[in-house]
Amino acid sequence: MIYRIFECSNARIIETRNPKPVKPFDIQPIDRSLQAELQQKIDHLNKPKGSLGRLEELALQIGLIQHTLNPSLNHPCHLLLGGDHGIEREGVSVSPREVTWQQMINFTHGGGGVNMFCRQHGFDLRIVDVGVDYNLSGIDGIIDRKIACGTRNFLYEPAMTVQQFNRAIEVGDQLVGDCVTQGCQVLGIGEMGIGNTSPSSIWMSLFGNIPLKECIGAGAGLDSPGIRHKCEVLSRAVEGYRQAQECGTIKADAEDVVRYFGGFEMVTAIGAMLSGAEHGLIVLVDGFIMTACAIAAIRLYPAVQDYMVFAHCGDESGHRRMLDIVGARPLLNLGLRLGEGTGALCAFPLLDSAVRMLREMNNFDNAKITKYF
Amino acid sequence: MIYRIFECSNARIIETRNPKPVKPFDIQPIDRSLQAELQQKIDHLNKPKGSLGRLEELALQIGLIQHTLNPSLNHPCHLLLGGDHGIEREGVSVSPREVTWQQMINFTHGGGGVNMFCRQHGFDLRIVDVGVDYNLSGIDGIIDRKIACGTRNFLYEPAMTVQQFNRAIEVGDQLVGDCVTQGCQVLGIGEMGIGNTSPSSIWMSLFGNIPLKECIGAGAGLDSPGIRHKCEVLSRAVEGYRQAQECGTIKADAEDVVRYFGGFEMVTAIGAMLSGAEHGLIVLVDGFIMTACAIAAIRLYPAVQDYMVFAHCGDESGHRRMLDIVGARPLLNLGLRLGEGTGALCAFPLLDSAVRMLREMNNFDNAKITKYF
Repeated sequence: MIYRIFECSNARIIETRNPKPVKPFDIQPIDRSLQAELQQKIDHLNKPKGSLGRLEELALQIGLIQHTLNPSLNHPCHLLLGGDHGIEREGVSVSPREVTWQQMINFTHGGGGVNMFCRQHGFDLRIVDVGVDYNLSGIDGIIDRKIACGTRNFLYEPAMTVQQFNRAIEVGDQLVGDCVTQGCQVLGIGEMGIGNTSPSSIWMSLFGNIPLKECIGAGAGLDSPGIRHKCEVLSRAVEGYRQAQECGTIKADAEDVVRYFGGFEMVTAIGAMLSGAEHGLIVLVDGFIMTACAIAAIRLYPAVQDYMVFAHCGDESGHRRMLDIVGARPLLNLGLRLGEGTGALCAFPLLDSAVRMLREMNNFDNAKITKYF
Repeated sequence: MIYRIFECSNARIIETRNPKPVKPFDIQPIDRSLQAELQQKIDHLNKPKGSLGRLEELALQIGLIQHTLNPSLNHPCHLLLGGDHGIEREGVSVSPREVTWQQMINFTHGGGGVNMFCRQHGFDLRIVDVGVDYNLSGIDGIIDRKIACGTRNFLYEPAMTVQQFNRAIEVGDQLVGDCVTQGCQVLGIGEMGIGNTSPSSIWMSLFGNIPLKECIGAGAGLDSPGIRHKCEVLSRAVEGYRQAQECGTIKADAEDVVRYFGGFEMVTAIGAMLSGAEHGLIVLVDGFIMTACAIAAIRLYPAVQDYMVFAHCGDESGHRRMLDIVGARPLLNLGLRLGEGTGALCAFPLLDSAVRMLREMNNFDNAKITKYF
């Protein structure tokens, strides 16, 4: 085999990879042994069969996840994960990098979108720095799990090392472990990371076998020339990735797709999703970036999807197509594109409604009603 | 003019009409003088412009309705209006008439869909009998405003007299007045009335100029022969209405379309919508039947639409087309078809989110964030 050395010049990090992630997750497909009984309970509630639509599907899924006819939604937690991206240096985002740390601090003051929706729906919000390019240590209200001050620029090299990847997964797992210790049954995940629609678009393209340009949208407000530039930069980045693969410095598996392009907040989110599923939590997924993370998580551990509730389809170009990759039908379509997991939070009352249906609604017997259809 | 007497045999009630409803409503289009200032406030919150999508539109509408930059949603009330329909005798519904009173009693026990969602979202639920074909007087938890034990059968005659129509409008107005006295700013309305998709389909057809058969769906579960039968019965009913018009016993105006086909719960709902708008409330509209009532209300007083928030698009065939008649874009699409105003209730948290956005979210100045787009 002839190595085409000149094509490898972009891949500066040559390293041995660990054989597997720090922690292999034990994620089982949901136990469906209660399905018939759950469906029977839902169908026998005093309403025309199926008349609560998506809420009935949600009730079934939640009942199966928790393996009970009377599920609950105790101590919902929301992880707000912040990180910066090397690729931001290429002018792929309309917002400057400094907005990441500024928003992280703003969240500690309670005035962000994520704050008000967490208050509204009773979520325990945990603001976590996993890779912000600013010293946030010691700031009250920010959990410091910084892996590095932003990822490297994946136009030239993998965004993170194997060690950093493993650490991000581990941080996600630990954060969820802490939530579970406090009785958490529902997990929301949001992100703050200027530039993170770029890796999301690439993951969508590579995991969904969709041409890259169909995966690139306006992010937080790019105009047409901006989108063209983003498209060009990301195409070159993917080309660099393919060259690194040919050189053997990068594998073609899901893990290395994630590692090559991902942000720390995104890989931490993947770790949190996997850990959430392992712990039997309901994992809320919203938005373009979190859906990209969900697809990556599903590629790593397909059974994780059983635990996911897709909350919202936003406006970011291609979000619906991305959802289609895994056959997901989101609950809401409100045109939100703020990030921070706001779509996930806005969907929470529907989960609550579904659970109340199972726990509080009369059935045809105790309501003394002629059964109708 | 030659009266075609035989064609008038169906119209048994010949009566003088009052010149106008008992109470003409004073419904003003919303005052838009704050619009620019509200929009400026929304755009200056610390988020990319427009990134909270439909919530931003909602915030604007609510701010305009209440004429304030800091709106509120105090004491939300939900009217659950029950009534029976003469047309039910023609076998147009899969459920028997007795389900109406059984469900009304069931609601007093707290085990219906409307109950759990009212509890969830803090609505003051008022269960009102305006026309149930059963003696519900004296039952704790049911407000007795019965106009008659069900409407007449509009296959043969107008469903209600002018006096009954006026009384139903008046009851709706009084119910809303009671809510307003207690500080209500948000009004939900739901219905319980076996057979009420039939008048709804006819209103949709007549108010929307849509062929009747395209307005008829499965109701609460009709099969294909059932739908064909319903279509045939309703076509004959509309023919009877047109004959009565030709005879001069019925006018061709919106009021008589409503009166000829409507249920007491539906006309009361229209009165409540009009009264809600007059009092400057936010009026939540969901479902096939309530959307039909909303369209009727808009035909009577076009400005009422400014106060309406369309909450949900259900599965009932034609619901989206009905919404299109008035250019309404519902917030949710969850496949609910239970009635009772459940879709309206499920949308309430989104109103709450919109209001929180205006009241709680930082702007770019106080958040000390580089303004992004």
